[in-house]
Amino acid sequence: MKAVQYVEVGSAPEVREIPVPEPKPGQIRLRVLAAGLCHSDWFIMGLPAEAYSYPLPLTLGHEAVGVVDKLGEGVTEFAVGDDVAVYGPWGCGACAECARGRENYCPNAAKLGIHPPGLGSPGGMAEYLIVDNARHLVPLQGLDPVAAVALTDAGLTPYHAIKNVIDKLPGGSTAVVIGTGGLGHVGIQILRALTSATVIALDVTEEKLEHARSVGAHHTVLSNSEAPAAIRELTGGIGADVVFDFVGATPTLETARASVRVDGAIEVVGIGGGTVPTGFGSTPFGVSVRAPYWGSRDELMEVLGLARTGQLSVSVERFDIADAPTAYARLHEGTIVGRAVVVP
Amino acid sequence: MKAVQYVEVGSAPEVREIPVPEPKPGQIRLRVLAAGLCHSDWFIMGLPAEAYSYPLPLTLGHEAVGVVDKLGEGVTEFAVGDDVAVYGPWGCGACAECARGRENYCPNAAKLGIHPPGLGSPGGMAEYLIVDNARHLVPLQGLDPVAAVALTDAGLTPYHAIKNVIDKLPGGSTAVVIGTGGLGHVGIQILRALTSATVIALDVTEEKLEHARSVGAHHTVLSNSEAPAAIRELTGGIGADVVFDFVGATPTLETARASVRVDGAIEVVGIGGGTVPTGFGSTPFGVSVRAPYWGSRDELMEVLGLARTGQLSVSVERFDIADAPTAYARLHEGTIVGRAVVVP
Amino acid sequence: MKAVQYVEVGSAPEVREIPVPEPKPGQIRLRVLAAGLCHSDWFIMGLPAEAYSYPLPLTLGHEAVGVVDKLGEGVTEFAVGDDVAVYGPWGCGACAECARGRENYCPNAAKLGIHPPGLGSPGGMAEYLIVDNARHLVPLQGLDPVAAVALTDAGLTPYHAIKNVIDKLPGGSTAVVIGTGGLGHVGIQILRALTSATVIALDVTEEKLEHARSVGAHHTVLSNSEAPAAIRELTGGIGADVVFDFVGATPTLETARASVRVDGAIEVVGIGGGTVPTGFGSTPFGVSVRAPYWGSRDELMEVLGLARTGQLSVSVERFDIADAPTAYARLHEGTIVGRAVVVP
Amino acid sequence: MKAVQYVEVGSAPEVREIPVPEPKPGQIRLRVLAAGLCHSDWFIMGLPAEAYSYPLPLTLGHEAVGVVDKLGEGVTEFAVGDDVAVYGPWGCGACAECARGRENYCPNAAKLGIHPPGLGSPGGMAEYLIVDNARHLVPLQGLDPVAAVALTDAGLTPYHAIKNVIDKLPGGSTAVVIGTGGLGHVGIQILRALTSATVIALDVTEEKLEHARSVGAHHTVLSNSEAPAAIRELTGGIGADVVFDFVGATPTLETARASVRVDGAIEVVGIGGGTVPTGFGSTPFGVSVRAPYWGSRDELMEVLGLARTGQLSVSVERFDIADAPTAYARLHEGTIVGRAVVVP
Repeated sequence: MKAVQYVEVGSAPEVREIPVPEPKPGQIRLRVLAAGLCHSDWFIMGLPAEAYSYPLPLTLGHEAVGVVDKLGEGVTEFAVGDDVAVYGPWGCGACAECARGRENYCPNAAKLGIHPPGLGSPGGMAEYLIVDNARHLVPLQGLDPVAAVALTDAGLTPYHAIKNVIDKLPGGSTAVVIGTGGLGHVGIQILRALTSATVIALDVTEEKLEHARSVGAHHTVLSNSEAPAAIRELTGGIGADVVFDFVGATPTLETARASVRVDGAIEVVGIGGGTVPTGFGSTPFGVSVRAPYWGSRDELMEVLGLARTGQLSVSVERFDIADAPTAYARLHEGTIVGRAVVVP
Repeated sequence: MKAVQYVEVGSAPEVREIPVPEPKPGQIRLRVLAAGLCHSDWFIMGLPAEAYSYPLPLTLGHEAVGVVDKLGEGVTEFAVGDDVAVYGPWGCGACAECARGRENYCPNAAKLGIHPPGLGSPGGMAEYLIVDNARHLVPLQGLDPVAAVALTDAGLTPYHAIKNVIDKLPGGSTAVVIGTGGLGHVGIQILRALTSATVIALDVTEEKLEHARSVGAHHTVLSNSEAPAAIRELTGGIGADVVFDFVGATPTLETARASVRVDGAIEVVGIGGGTVPTGFGSTPFGVSVRAPYWGSRDELMEVLGLARTGQLSVSVERFDIADAPTAYARLHEGTIVGRAVVVP
Repeated sequence: MKAVQYVEVGSAPEVREIPVPEPKPGQIRLRVLAAGLCHSDWFIMGLPAEAYSYPLPLTLGHEAVGVVDKLGEGVTEFAVGDDVAVYGPWGCGACAECARGRENYCPNAAKLGIHPPGLGSPGGMAEYLIVDNARHLVPLQGLDPVAAVALTDAGLTPYHAIKNVIDKLPGGSTAVVIGTGGLGHVGIQILRALTSATVIALDVTEEKLEHARSVGAHHTVLSNSEAPAAIRELTGGIGADVVFDFVGATPTLETARASVRVDGAIEVVGIGGGTVPTGFGSTPFGVSVRAPYWGSRDELMEVLGLARTGQLSVSVERFDIADAPTAYARLHEGTIVGRAVVVP
Repeated sequence: MKAVQYVEVGSAPEVREIPVPEPKPGQIRLRVLAAGLCHSDWFIMGLPAEAYSYPLPLTLGHEAVGVVDKLGEGVTEFAVGDDVAVYGPWGCGACAECARGRENYCPNAAKLGIHPPGLGSPGGMAEYLIVDNARHLVPLQGLDPVAAVALTDAGLTPYHAIKNVIDKLPGGSTAVVIGTGGLGHVGIQILRALTSATVIALDVTEEKLEHARSVGAHHTVLSNSEAPAAIRELTGGIGADVVFDFVGATPTLETARASVRVDGAIEVVGIGGGTVPTGFGSTPFGVSVRAPYWGSRDELMEVLGLARTGQLSVSVERFDIADAPTAYARLHEGTIVGRAVVVP
């Protein structure tokens, strides 16, 4: 079968022919219907050899949907022919976090060598994908595979960040979204669906701000050193209840710190390499700062529920698997609008 | 000044001329801009003499907005000329519930003889109103008095019920609203604003269901013995995550019980005299059943915040104070659409 | 192997010889180290033929701990020789409740024919037990099997009920425990461990109250019609923040209703056949009433954690498997102190 | 009357004779029964002139209990002779935070010139104290004034920090307390009362660790660069669920960061001048970091509730008001055990 692989450290992703894998007992083989590209793929492909710890070659793709193609022995929860989405942050399955469905915070996965598909295990950017356990599948229930695939990360990640602080977003509150790209434009929609908060979106061009407004932002502000003052003004001098930073670079995190209100929250979703110096005299009293990671199994079901009721849609550009390397290159250049999806 | 009063047990409300009251230290006098009528007024006017415990004559009106007209000594939080809404469920101010702003659950108020305006204390259906403490005022901040007044009860009460169970209404969930009148039609709007839940509204006529759809219900079902089956069908056989019963009569509570899912919730908001037999074998496992009362101070601020951002509006029929007795009669007959408001 | 079975409707449990079962792919076979008896066993054995819906003969025992004896194909989470406790409320594994570890509220289990061991599936009161999925096992990590086995139900059930309302039990609060037997005496200990609440225990004899004090109750009250007044007096006239009724009969539920404070909670844990008429004018404002069921997977881990740190111990009477019928008879008579455990 | 005052920037506190103040309408005058000294007093006395913004001379003392001595007009909640504790973090009283009793996070106080007693307003280290509003008083209900006074800050502050993250401390969890002095030794007791967590205490001498064990710490570890490894070992390699840093200096915050588990929390209570660089790659995924401030009104009531039930006691050294300057000097030197309290 065809698979998009990262072959050696520093190389570009390639389309290669590899054997179709067989599911062992307890595993499920999917025929992949769609697989999403993500900046995280570039993040790991950008690691130097001494920091890169996964097997090579690595089939990419941690966003995947497919149809159940073959069941390993002992799998009873799904049947051949079922359309499913893959829950990506695989954990040990035996700890309290995994018991709560929060496998994204499993403390044992790394030391047990358990990795998400495409981020250590063979990923979904191939014609077939082995999923290790039925608990890592969620029924699509009629959602379009290409439209839904990005929800497994670009939907789930902001959803999880928002759910974590939703108590701080009651009637009359304000949320700031910094970065309105792949995850941010979904975050805006989720904020509109899950809360009544006024949404202020920040980005660096008027074009991106226009897009932010089109998906639901009430106000938009250019992301620069004057943004905190604009946010203060829009919030009657108080500051935003929550700031979601989908960039996570030092300048945007400074904006977050300068814009958040007392007793508010900052969720650092972007992996831009910055940190928030958190503590007395630096962040306002009572503000929690947190770098969340992906989301929980039940939250993925909830995200798909939002899509099913029409409250969430991801802008998608579709590529044939042969064009995946091109798609990765364009993702790197920043010329993908929304999310790139490979359809094998 | 003119005041709408309940003069003796069993009599109809009357417009009477009484002295303009003076604020004592710590109190605030409002010139009333709008006062709302409520079924609860009829509830207390329907009590027999042995059950009626408030002073007579009683100035009615527990929904009130006004402009600060005169400050008692020691009041610093507001200034003459401020437009304010009255927080009605007055508590002792010194217990833990009051400290949390949940004066609606103050365990001391009744035994201390502290009563809401219009429900024991002189109410807002008059030209002037004495509010006992600055903490019972919330700034209107530009809201239209007539449009806002009903939010202090018909908005706050459903808001509080919804907030109590909001964790049970994530993406993909379903809420049922039984009774789409004064409180119910506001409840539908609040559910749409605060959650992503699919809203199923129940009422007894197609006309009321049409109104429910116009304020945001996704589905409507006639409220009768077949309603639970319809709700089951709309929820894939699972049942509704939460049922809000704004009627509270035995048949509607039976519908609630038969429609709620395992681990769901029933909020009994209406005072229709019914109860839910709650326990093993009667209600599904894990379902919490609760009769909430009004709401908290911060929730009133949040409700006004929703209105300020255009997410909440109450259908209002406006009456001159001289016509208040007529308005009450029409409320009793059920010919008021939305909420009746007296403008002194 | 020997197994304690319910053979036909209306018969007494018997010890019978049956084949040792083989684990299928995904399943685990345990050599049982201890199995607990429970009033629920009598509940199902007391059902008339038309209400009894499980296969016969039924091996009893929904509280079980054992050592992993043989792994079905595909099981990777555990190894032969591991000591484990069984999480009993088995769900479908694929819905949002199961994803959260709340299989006790799975809406699909019943219709899919999925039943807990001993309550539909072959139970743990036998030399060997088949567990359907690794997710239904929790490591014992050094706990004594006989001491720990009752925690899987008699520990987990009160733990879950308490966790549900723990926000209502801050510093200075009061909890009432009605019924201090198998579950109640564990509930008292859990309240003492998880909260700072003052615990008032109710039961029908001085001997039982003495036992309640010995496991941590601060105050004890005879369970009769004067109990609500005693609780009011102990709470400064306010009432208890939460009442846990481990009996669930009409008179105890009346005590619960009459003893709970405004904005409090009643958890109906006992299956004594009563219900609480919940609603306006019947239960105090804001009181949630709920019949919980068993507990979640992560909560079972937490309960075992409490035992591991010495904060929880269950009084146990130990029986050989041959004496299980006698043990059941004594349980029925009410002459078991604490919990009866069979050691195969 | 005698008052302990900070007279000019850089000077030592002095005992001075000033007029007894009169309560205005809405205010309450207390005869002070006890007032606590705090490191925060030294913090503001250590500010250079350009950073010091309060009036001078300033009567010190933000921990105070007293007996109601005279009521301003319009005060109805308390009577002369009532023993009360002062809730210190005064807010505007009109915003949503204040409505929730979270005046400690009032966004308006500073800009309105509202300051806590002793931290801007005249404080409690005097024979009489004016409290601006009845909502800032909590009944002592029989607590000893000298024993209780430190609870208003040294009790409330850790209580608030703990309540914020209590969901992360279920059965089997672990909490780390760094710094076991004035606030830390109370924090240990509160953790033991409110949770079942295993408590690991860190400090710099064996003597302090012995004290930590005496107030309830399960394990103690010297606070140095090897502490994180010791904490990992005590937690099976996972790390602590929550770290409370009552020091807040760079080295202790590094320990916190290195000791906390994935999905855990760090509460930075100490004002030692450090910050935690929070974000991707720096703090474990899902960890919230937060610098809380003091506590809410209802939490103060809860803290007093804990003391009333004997679950909390503060080590106190008592000083006459004439000796307050000496007490401050000894506090600065670090030779006070527990908390210094002035009794006028």
